[in-house]
This record gives sequence, C-alpha cells and structure tokens, in this order.
Amino acid sequence: MSKLLSDTIEMIAPLDEGAMAKAQARQDMLTKPQGSLGRLEELSIQLAGIQGKSIPRVRDKAIVTMAGDHGVVAEGVTAYPSEVTAQMVANFLSGGAGINVISRLVGARILVVDMGVAADLEPNPQLLSRKIAFGTQNISHGPAMSREEAIKAIEVGIEIVTAELAQGLDIVGTGDMGIGNTTPSSAICAVMTGKPVAEVTGRGTGIGDKQLEHKIEVINGALAINQPDPKQPLEVLAKVGGFEIGGLVGVMLGAAAHRIPVVIDGFISGAAAAIATALSPALKDYLVAAHVSVEPGHQLLLRHLGLKPLLDLGMRLGEGTGAALGMFMAEVAARVLSDMSTFAEAGVSEKELNH
Amino acid sequence: MSKLLSDTIEMIAPLDEGAMAKAQARQDMLTKPQGSLGRLEELSIQLAGIQGKSIPRVRDKAIVTMAGDHGVVAEGVTAYPSEVTAQMVANFLSGGAGINVISRLVGARILVVDMGVAADLEPNPQLLSRKIAFGTQNISHGPAMSREEAIKAIEVGIEIVTAELAQGLDIVGTGDMGIGNTTPSSAICAVMTGKPVAEVTGRGTGIGDKQLEHKIEVINGALAINQPDPKQPLEVLAKVGGFEIGGLVGVMLGAAAHRIPVVIDGFISGAAAAIATALSPALKDYLVAAHVSVEPGHQLLLRHLGLKPLLDLGMRLGEGTGAALGMFMAEVAARVLSDMSTFAEAGVSEKELNH
Repeated sequence: MSKLLSDTIEMIAPLDEGAMAKAQARQDMLTKPQGSLGRLEELSIQLAGIQGKSIPRVRDKAIVTMAGDHGVVAEGVTAYPSEVTAQMVANFLSGGAGINVISRLVGARILVVDMGVAADLEPNPQLLSRKIAFGTQNISHGPAMSREEAIKAIEVGIEIVTAELAQGLDIVGTGDMGIGNTTPSSAICAVMTGKPVAEVTGRGTGIGDKQLEHKIEVINGALAINQPDPKQPLEVLAKVGGFEIGGLVGVMLGAAAHRIPVVIDGFISGAAAAIATALSPALKDYLVAAHVSVEPGHQLLLRHLGLKPLLDLGMRLGEGTGAALGMFMAEVAARVLSDMSTFAEAGVSEKELNH
Repeated sequence: MSKLLSDTIEMIAPLDEGAMAKAQARQDMLTKPQGSLGRLEELSIQLAGIQGKSIPRVRDKAIVTMAGDHGVVAEGVTAYPSEVTAQMVANFLSGGAGINVISRLVGARILVVDMGVAADLEPNPQLLSRKIAFGTQNISHGPAMSREEAIKAIEVGIEIVTAELAQGLDIVGTGDMGIGNTTPSSAICAVMTGKPVAEVTGRGTGIGDKQLEHKIEVINGALAINQPDPKQPLEVLAKVGGFEIGGLVGVMLGAAAHRIPVVIDGFISGAAAAIATALSPALKDYLVAAHVSVEPGHQLLLRHLGLKPLLDLGMRLGEGTGAALGMFMAEVAARVLSDMSTFAEAGVSEKELNH
C-alpha cells in the first residue's frame, strides 16, 4: 500500500456525534411532527455527522464520472462495442448525456475522468486525463491490472477529490462509464459478498438470455483463473476490477478522509464501495446510497454495505445519474434542517401530550 | 351536480396516444440503453400523453396547498390542537414551513388556500381566501358538510387551477393542511376501498396506541351514523370529508380537464383522488403518485387507484412536500426526453444485435 493510500485511510474518522445530536435537537424543534420527513431527517443527521457541522451544507456539488475500458469485452459479454466508451465520454463533454441533463437540473458540476479508455481521447479542458492504460487486460486470461496499477487508480481518485476541496466542495457523487463494466462489478460482488456468480450477474445495458448465460460462464472462469481473496481488497481490484472502479474507490476514500459525504450511484459504484469499505470499514458511514439499480447484484451489495437506498426508480444507466438525484435529496435534507422555522420562531403550538 | 362540475368532468379526455408513441420513439433514440432510466422514462411518456405533446414541458410548477379544519377534532383524535391549522397557514405565508423550503429547491410556487380554517385569517396577498365555513361539522354526530358545500369546495378547486392556466402552468401538485384531516381521510379510504377502518387508520401527526384505538372507534361511529355510499362520491365527501379534501378533488378534475398533470401528495391527497376518480375514471391517467406515506391507508389508496409511487421516503408531513419532490422527478423525466442527445446527434454507436 502506498503512503498516500494508507494516510488517507488513516484520516477517515468516526462521525461527529456532537454535531449529530445538535442536528437531531434542531430537527425536533422544526414546525412539523417529529420524524415526519422520514428518510430526509435521517439523512440530515448523517450529513451533520459527516461534515462535523450541526447544520450541514449541501450546495457545492460535484459528480465524478470515471471512464475505463475492459479487456473482457473481447469475450462477447456486452450489448455495445468498446468504442462506445470513448463516444460517450465525448457525449459527456458536449453536454448531451443523461448525466449532463440531470446534473444541470440538480446544480451539480461533472468531472469527467479518463481512467483507462481504450482510445486516444482528444484533449478537452473539461476532461481530466488520468489514463492508466488503454483498457484492462482480459480477466478471462489473468489479472485485469497489476497491483501497482490498482493502487495508482485509487490514488488518482484521492487526488481528484482532494483537488476539488479548494472550491469548497460540500458533497460528491460517483459515476462511471465503461462498456463491459458490469462484468468486473459482478465478479467483485461475487467475491466480496460470497454469493454465486449467477445470482449477482445481470443484463448490463441489455443482453439477451443466451448472452447472459455466457457472461456468467465468463465471470466464473475469471474467478477460477484469478482466485481473488476477499480478505485482500486491493488484490480483488487488481485481479477482476477496472480502472474506473479503482478510481471510484479513491474518490470515496479521499472524500471521507476530508469529511465530505459521498453519494454512490448504482452497481459499479457499489462494487467500488465494497472494495473501499474493505480497505476502511469507517468509510461506510460516509456513504449515501442514492438508489437501487435493476442489476441484481446491486441489492446484494447494498445489503452487504448496510446501506438503504433513497430511490428505487428502476434505473440502470450509470454515469452518476442516480447519484445526481441522490445528491438533490441530500440538498433537500440539509435545507430542511437549515431553513425551516422552529415552533418558537413561527409561533406554532407544540404537540399535546399523548393520552 | 353543478354545471361547472359536470362540464369539467366531461372535458377529461383519454391520453394522447399519438404523442405517447412519438415520445417513446424519441426515448429509444437517446444515448442510453433503452429503458435504462426506468420510471423516469415511463413518466415522460405519461406526461406526453397528458399534455398531448411529444416532448412534454415541466417548467411552470405550482403546488396548491389547501387548508381546512375538522369538527371531529373535538373527539380527541389528534396530537395537535385545531389552532395549529391557522398557525401553519401563517407559517406557509411567511415561508418557514417544510413545503416552502422544498418548493424553493424544486422551483415551484405555492398557492395557499383557506378552504375552511376555523379562524379569521389576516388578509395576505399570498393567501387565497375561499373559506366555505369555519371548519366542518363533527362527523361523529352527522355529515361534515352539506351537499352544496361539497360541490362548492370542488368548484373552488376547479376555479383555482383554471385561473392559473393563464400563467402557462405545466404541472400542478396537491398539498393539504388541516389538523385532524387523517380522520376524514381514513373514513373516505374505508368507504372507497371497502377495507376495515382499523386497517386504514394511522397515527396522523403522532398519536399513541390508546388514542389510535379511540380514533378508530370515532371513525367507525362516524360511518355508522352517516352511512356513506361508495357509489355516491359526492355524498361520501359531504358526509365524512373535509373542505380541503373537496378543494383538492376540484384541483385534480380541473387540471385534468385542461391536460395538466397532477402530482398527488400523501394520504389526504390520496383520499381526494379516490373521490375524484370515482367522479371521473378517466382522471386516473392524469395522476402521478409522488410518494407513499407512512399512513397505512395510503398504500391501500394507491393500490385502489392503480398508482405506483415514485418515492418511498417514510414521509408523512403533508402540505404538498411529497408532491413537490415528485414534481421535480417529473421535471427530470421531461428534461431527459427533451434535452438528451440522440445516438445520431452524438455519433454514438447503437446496440449490437443480441446473440
């Protein structure tokens, strides 16, 4: 493990219970029946604990959308060709993708990162070029990447989120783009949760029954060849992961180290979170699960992580689209706590004693 | 039935299937796997059918929050005294309530309507004074209101939403404020769904076990005395309803008559929707269920209405807070459809044929 990585893990502290108690006390004075905003109230308390502020702030919002390609696409596990990864990165940069539309509506900026796209991407001021390689190796034949590359990918994520702090970053969301990346994510999910591959593998962008059967075989083969040990999360990432997945591990660790809440997107972010929380169990309290994806492994990952999703909208797009909606819910939660009047301020009578 | 009411019901037409087919065709050309935005895609198609536009618009958003008091509060069925209704109306007008905070974040304006608050409210340019009476009669002893008052309440709702059309209203959300109004809503729910009162009655703003038992007895008593007939929705409203509930029935009917989508809030809006859809079965397709409330009757009402809620956040505040969040989801759905690039525009390769 590198010094940056171990220092970052070391920095991740428990939530601030004093701030949480104060936030809860304020929630209970606001002009509404106690607890009547449900998950939004719980979320505001978690945000207070993460930020260490009795009134958390969710204004400056960034989605980190990390892109990478996957050697395993050669095995015919996907509905779209690998070229689409680079094409979609271009779409992000020109503002036409789902994540662009939703981010504009929720007022979040997007950091698009080339972690390992299998093409030379045109330089663009909005693109962070951190390419580790032109896609991973094919996990059907051996490890996706070296241990050094896995650590490098995580470090890139840490550095990117740390560099954003100067802007006053209040919350970060994770997103991904990588044709084929439900395959490594299913592999990671199977290893980390101990569930059979068939149970954690889905249709990704939309493959048919036969191709799904083949995908499951390919993942089982990759696990047989690579033999990743769930007790060695860095090894799991290197053997059956992806560059964008490693980058997201770093984003999560780096954000938590600086008390920034992390809204995680769907299945790929969930796989990254499984690796990241294995590296730092304290990280878990810094994560907010935006939604539950249609991918069957995602629900199992969320259960493994002990996270309850905010939304269940049958989404499976990735890119950070779910995270962007989750960030908006976090902003609502924070603003309810900061902006609502108390009973005293509004001159509203409090609850009568129960009979 | 009055002429305004019967004319309004007459105007509610089936959804525009041509617009829906065009919206679906556009969804399928956007740069994402088909169906990968799940409920948001479905919602965009529904909005297209409602508005009769292949690309629906959700920009000008209004929440109608209707307030009224309830004579049945004298029976000790609530955690807060009736005075809180007027106090909360004042809180809405000064911007400190939950609905104010959430509406500001989603960019919706709020129309606060006095439908029957049991107090003289100070005139305020932001308050629509349409008081039908100083609260309903106590349903433990007889009908909540006369049939004429029930029709008047519905007409007020129709007129309020119709008056907003001049502003270019794209979507409307329903909200309520009325200490005691889960009691008439449970009564309506029991009548319209045929379920036992004990199954559809909850803790409202937070009563204890003993008071809940008492509330169930009171509702059973009110149904025994009033004998409302589920086949006579106006009679149900008059016998065991409320002025704000009647007003919301009118908002729903008036909006649908002018092809405006209606995002319904929680339990009280659900009870209003049960009355409104009994008056006009065609209305159902114009309704979007924002969320499912903690009140047990709400889930049953949604099933009765055939609506699937967008959100499940354990909320039970009313005021339109859930509807405001649901309207935001509707805006996201519409903007995805209008603003995302197509595969051709973005130069992204389409899906390969499945194996």
